[in-house]
Amino acid sequence: MPFGFELIKKDRSTGARLGKITTPHGEVDTPAFMPVGTQGTVKALRPDDLSACGAQMILGNTYHLYLRPGHDLIGKMGGLHSFMNWPGPILTDSGGFQVFSLGALRKILPDGVRFRSHIDGSLHMLTPAKAIEIQEALGSDIMMCLDECTPYPATRRQTLDSLTLTTKWAALCREAKKNDHQALFGIVQGGMFMDLRRQSLEELVRLDFDGYALGGVSVGEPKDQMYAVTSEIAPLLPASRPRYLMGVGTPADIVHGVSCGIDLFDCVMPTRCARHGLLFTNKEKIVIKNARWREDTAPLDETCDCYTCKNFSRGYLRHLYVAGEILAMILNTLHNIRFYMRLMENIREALRRDDFAAFQKDFQNQEIF
Amino acid sequence: MPFGFELIKKDRSTGARLGKITTPHGEVDTPAFMPVGTQGTVKALRPDDLSACGAQMILGNTYHLYLRPGHDLIGKMGGLHSFMNWPGPILTDSGGFQVFSLGALRKILPDGVRFRSHIDGSLHMLTPAKAIEIQEALGSDIMMCLDECTPYPATRRQTLDSLTLTTKWAALCREAKKNDHQALFGIVQGGMFMDLRRQSLEELVRLDFDGYALGGVSVGEPKDQMYAVTSEIAPLLPASRPRYLMGVGTPADIVHGVSCGIDLFDCVMPTRCARHGLLFTNKEKIVIKNARWREDTAPLDETCDCYTCKNFSRGYLRHLYVAGEILAMILNTLHNIRFYMRLMENIREALRRDDFAAFQKDFQNQEIF
Repeated sequence: MPFGFELIKKDRSTGARLGKITTPHGEVDTPAFMPVGTQGTVKALRPDDLSACGAQMILGNTYHLYLRPGHDLIGKMGGLHSFMNWPGPILTDSGGFQVFSLGALRKILPDGVRFRSHIDGSLHMLTPAKAIEIQEALGSDIMMCLDECTPYPATRRQTLDSLTLTTKWAALCREAKKNDHQALFGIVQGGMFMDLRRQSLEELVRLDFDGYALGGVSVGEPKDQMYAVTSEIAPLLPASRPRYLMGVGTPADIVHGVSCGIDLFDCVMPTRCARHGLLFTNKEKIVIKNARWREDTAPLDETCDCYTCKNFSRGYLRHLYVAGEILAMILNTLHNIRFYMRLMENIREALRRDDFAAFQKDFQNQEIF
Repeated sequence: MPFGFELIKKDRSTGARLGKITTPHGEVDTPAFMPVGTQGTVKALRPDDLSACGAQMILGNTYHLYLRPGHDLIGKMGGLHSFMNWPGPILTDSGGFQVFSLGALRKILPDGVRFRSHIDGSLHMLTPAKAIEIQEALGSDIMMCLDECTPYPATRRQTLDSLTLTTKWAALCREAKKNDHQALFGIVQGGMFMDLRRQSLEELVRLDFDGYALGGVSVGEPKDQMYAVTSEIAPLLPASRPRYLMGVGTPADIVHGVSCGIDLFDCVMPTRCARHGLLFTNKEKIVIKNARWREDTAPLDETCDCYTCKNFSRGYLRHLYVAGEILAMILNTLHNIRFYMRLMENIREALRRDDFAAFQKDFQNQEIF
């Protein structure tokens, strides 16, 4: 199946949309959350765990896979789907965000970013063409353009320069792309300046991408600024293409993003929190190491249908976490990913019922997240 | 079901036996290998993974569970089966071996062992009655007597003193035992002195245990001495009771033990090796971090039916291991445990076919282990 997006329904009172993305590796019901599989694995989970949790599409990190084991190797091994035995859709980022995060180890040049590997210090150059070459070797269903992720805070001048570079690189990515079966998304930058966001968006739409992402959010800005950018810009993204809010976020961020018309999310939050013993439930956030759970025979969340909640008590999970057992990471991650997947299922169900505004209000009233 | 042992068949040309242990939590086909679940989990595996690998009985470590989370807590939570959600049989050790391994942190006294916790330095006393009290709170199907594990090397005098203490403590364990539904095994000591081994055995048999173990093996002695003790003493253990070779061992040690008439084994080898990237196959031992596996698209073992071998390449497993991913531990452990379980299945099948001597010869000729 070629790449496609079907807009099934638009909510009456918010910007929320119910949709379906079609890819060569299957369909994704949107709004969707993509668990992050940084190094060719969603940490602590097996592919069949991900499927059991209801995950449909996962994210792979180009930067990490390029450095180790290398995109050439993964290409030789049949691509990332085959390498990690994940049969479903995969979106890969461009590697840009991780490279920019290297700080002193990288230098932005007009043609790309020169950086040193965080693993062995070796010198590399990531250009738009290289970002596409890597993602084509990985064989993801959705590739992302190399962009310059504008930092926060940034002056208007810096932000304009950054978005100009991003547009230039987006055009080069578009040109470099060879594979028809892989989709390519553009990334809207423009920082906290709404007119620059609109400028970026217009320049990218002229290049005609298969989908559009909001980048440069969740980079340290106050939450109300992130919400303001999402609220104002998401509705302007082409309605006929998937809209992706990169690196977001908390359950509340996701519900807000959906209400603005976002279709795709990704974040390390559920997996990273799980490994640090912070667990999401519909009643509270649980810090599992706390002594109050010591003798608790109840599951994490009575309403949850995950393997962890169906089989283990909070007391046992606390013991595993305190004892530093690998099983703690496994069971915690299973639960948090299932929690995020249930959130997305509930959002889609509310949209199907034409009831999203009420769902959002209920969700906000809980004030858990 | 009460505890019982059925001797199904004795091999014609070796001491090997095919049998079945019955416990309140189900049956165990023998010869059997017990994966070690030190802290209430077999490291990196879920209970359903263990069942899928074919494990029937697992071992729990009294020392670790006593210190953390505490046997009282586990008792309150319904016992170890319920706490860790393992529905099958569990054997618990007495805690003695771990306490003796503390070295300078412990002192052997006539009534028991005084020791400091390796976790917080707190002072504790493990006596025969305490070892039983803990194991009764844990609710294991098979409990072990507190013994003094004779170190290697030891003089005849030390060995005699040690076995005298072991017999005295075994009698006290027998007396302390309250629960009818939990079986209790005695542990034969006597070091490398065959006459002392026989003396220990006779003293224990007089006390009448539900099963008998060979202890004080695999404690640093040369392999031929371990094999000599097993060969000479295992056949003298009461034929109507299960025979357990504690803490053993490599696949070769297990095949040898079976040929001497041993029914039960436990060892951290398959799980610990897995976490260090040493993987067992029917052709070779694989050190998965080696560069030679980098581009290898074959499974670890073509003949293996485990989740790892059915879904992943050596190249991917190498990547996961080198990248330090949790999934490396999970997939490696699944494979090694399945390897051990298949070994035991093959041993039992050979015994059923009256073909164990040929199996043993074939196995030894491979010279892999």
